[in-house]
Amino acid sequence: MTVKTLEDLFHETLKDIYYAEKKLLKTLPKMVKLAASPTLKEAIEHHLEETEGHVTRLEEVFALAGSSPVSRKCEAVEGLVKEAEEVLGEIEDLPTIDAAIISSAQTIEHYEIARYGTLVCWARQFGLKEAELLLQKTLDEEQNADKKLSRLAEEYVNQKAAA
Amino acid sequence: MTVKTLEDLFHETLKDIYYAEKKLLKTLPKMVKLAASPTLKEAIEHHLEETEGHVTRLEEVFALAGSSPVSRKCEAVEGLVKEAEEVLGEIEDLPTIDAAIISSAQTIEHYEIARYGTLVCWARQFGLKEAELLLQKTLDEEQNADKKLSRLAEEYVNQKAAA
Repeated sequence: MTVKTLEDLFHETLKDIYYAEKKLLKTLPKMVKLAASPTLKEAIEHHLEETEGHVTRLEEVFALAGSSPVSRKCEAVEGLVKEAEEVLGEIEDLPTIDAAIISSAQTIEHYEIARYGTLVCWARQFGLKEAELLLQKTLDEEQNADKKLSRLAEEYVNQKAAA
Repeated sequence: MTVKTLEDLFHETLKDIYYAEKKLLKTLPKMVKLAASPTLKEAIEHHLEETEGHVTRLEEVFALAGSSPVSRKCEAVEGLVKEAEEVLGEIEDLPTIDAAIISSAQTIEHYEIARYGTLVCWARQFGLKEAELLLQKTLDEEQNADKKLSRLAEEYVNQKAAA
């Protein structure tokens, strides 16, 4: 693949996050299964539903940008998920596993926040108003998911894990 | 490795980000070399200096937490850097390469923001006041670096790349 313009880069980045979102559809259910706290389980389940919506939204963005939805292997999400699975596999203590799930999930959320932040900015640059709004909606949901995880950690998961 | 407590997890996460920061000491100079815009070059060079400080601060945090600085292979940063190098290697156009450097650097910044955010929270939980302050300082610098990159992108890099 040769990237010659910012538009090419926009399309490659769309393919990258499309791959990442689809990967997360397989990863989040594993986290739901591992989580000890019902509130954490629920929060991840809710974000799993949102992730399904993000995939659909990306398909709309591909159409608005005049292309078809294609994945491009996202090495970043592969590394993030590998690290998350490795750490979660080492933990024996239930409250600690919840703290680790939150911590790992937040590294993934932040990857998506960075990607969507860039994509919103580029869509605006190209005057792709509708695509920009769709990407912004997903960005807002990723940021809210991240904040919710921080709240959960601060409110009780860390205290329980440190008890 | 078996993680049994939140304290174990704190130490494993310190080792992970210690590895990541040291990896970035090798990655950032490559980005400086590739960057076309002098302002972008300068911004990354500045962050490279900060990164050296982050490594030293982490060594202080290890000491405050009663252990020695050890690295643990960080699969996440490996994936993030692999993706960045892959994308940057595909680009032929100079303004586009600057947009791609910013985009890639921001995914790495966000990984660090997530990790330091968690570490600050855990240090607070353990009452490691001094460690918390050191980690917070680095978190602030990572967040500022991310904002600076966004500003650079919005102010001129994207416009130049889209021209």
